[in-house]
Amino acid sequence: MSSSDKASFREAMSRVGAAVHIITTRDERGAHGFTASAVCSVTDTPPTLLFCLNRNTSSHEIFTIGRAACVNTLAAAQEGLSAIFADRAQLDVRFRHGNWATSDTGAPVLADAAASFEGIVTNVVEVGSHSVVFLQVRAIRIEPDVPVLMYFSRGYHRLPALPMEING
Amino acid sequence: MSSSDKASFREAMSRVGAAVHIITTRDERGAHGFTASAVCSVTDTPPTLLFCLNRNTSSHEIFTIGRAACVNTLAAAQEGLSAIFADRAQLDVRFRHGNWATSDTGAPVLADAAASFEGIVTNVVEVGSHSVVFLQVRAIRIEPDVPVLMYFSRGYHRLPALPMEING
Repeated sequence: MSSSDKASFREAMSRVGAAVHIITTRDERGAHGFTASAVCSVTDTPPTLLFCLNRNTSSHEIFTIGRAACVNTLAAAQEGLSAIFADRAQLDVRFRHGNWATSDTGAPVLADAAASFEGIVTNVVEVGSHSVVFLQVRAIRIEPDVPVLMYFSRGYHRLPALPMEING
Repeated sequence: MSSSDKASFREAMSRVGAAVHIITTRDERGAHGFTASAVCSVTDTPPTLLFCLNRNTSSHEIFTIGRAACVNTLAAAQEGLSAIFADRAQLDVRFRHGNWATSDTGAPVLADAAASFEGIVTNVVEVGSHSVVFLQVRAIRIEPDVPVLMYFSRGYHRLPALPMEING
């Protein structure tokens, strides 16, 4: 595809609504976290999800096999954290924002997230500019009744906790 | 994880809102398609997305490397198609519903979908009960102004074409 085709791809992907997550880990330098929407469920046998990560980002090399990590699915009220954890200028101060606990694995877990999936990286597959990281989930937290944050059409949206009737 | 942990995982994943897609292909037996929400963007270099597929489904063995396929992202008005393409009892009559065109690659493309990503399967990674299928995108269609269908908290929702201000 040409560069215009890349632009078409990005434009079309902007039409695919997605939940917003902050993915975290910790190493000897401290806590790391970044905002991501490219996350999806793989299987419940064993419980596994995946996320995609640009190989040019500073945190890329941290997410190797065996690493503990946590996918924190944001509630609608956490829109501000989404921006902070996507901002390179705030790389060193990101964890001053939000209410973070340290789990048994060491990965930072966000209090009041809609859901948190804590686990161990079991595989990394490289595709073009990105890596696909597989996380086998070991511990889960849920806030069942909060509206969640969504990203769609280049803006934030919210979805309420309960399904509603839609009219096509 | 125990079976109760699997249930926890499914419950937590129900808190992750996702777009709804019908993924299609065609072989010598005809057109095949199924409803999926486990789809995500991988990279625009080259434009690639992935989808996850249960290896126990009838269509699993069709999505091998080199196969043409199309990911059709549903508009809110296409909620009915989502149910039909998820219903095993309607396996043989699914394509009687919806307005389908055949692309150059042969994969069925859904008219009026919010977006369609047509491409070639470049890799398949097996993880537990599921396969992760990588699709390198060759052609794109977009309906920019339609609301899209979302699945969240075990029900359908819609997101409007334009972002709106949210209140946490």
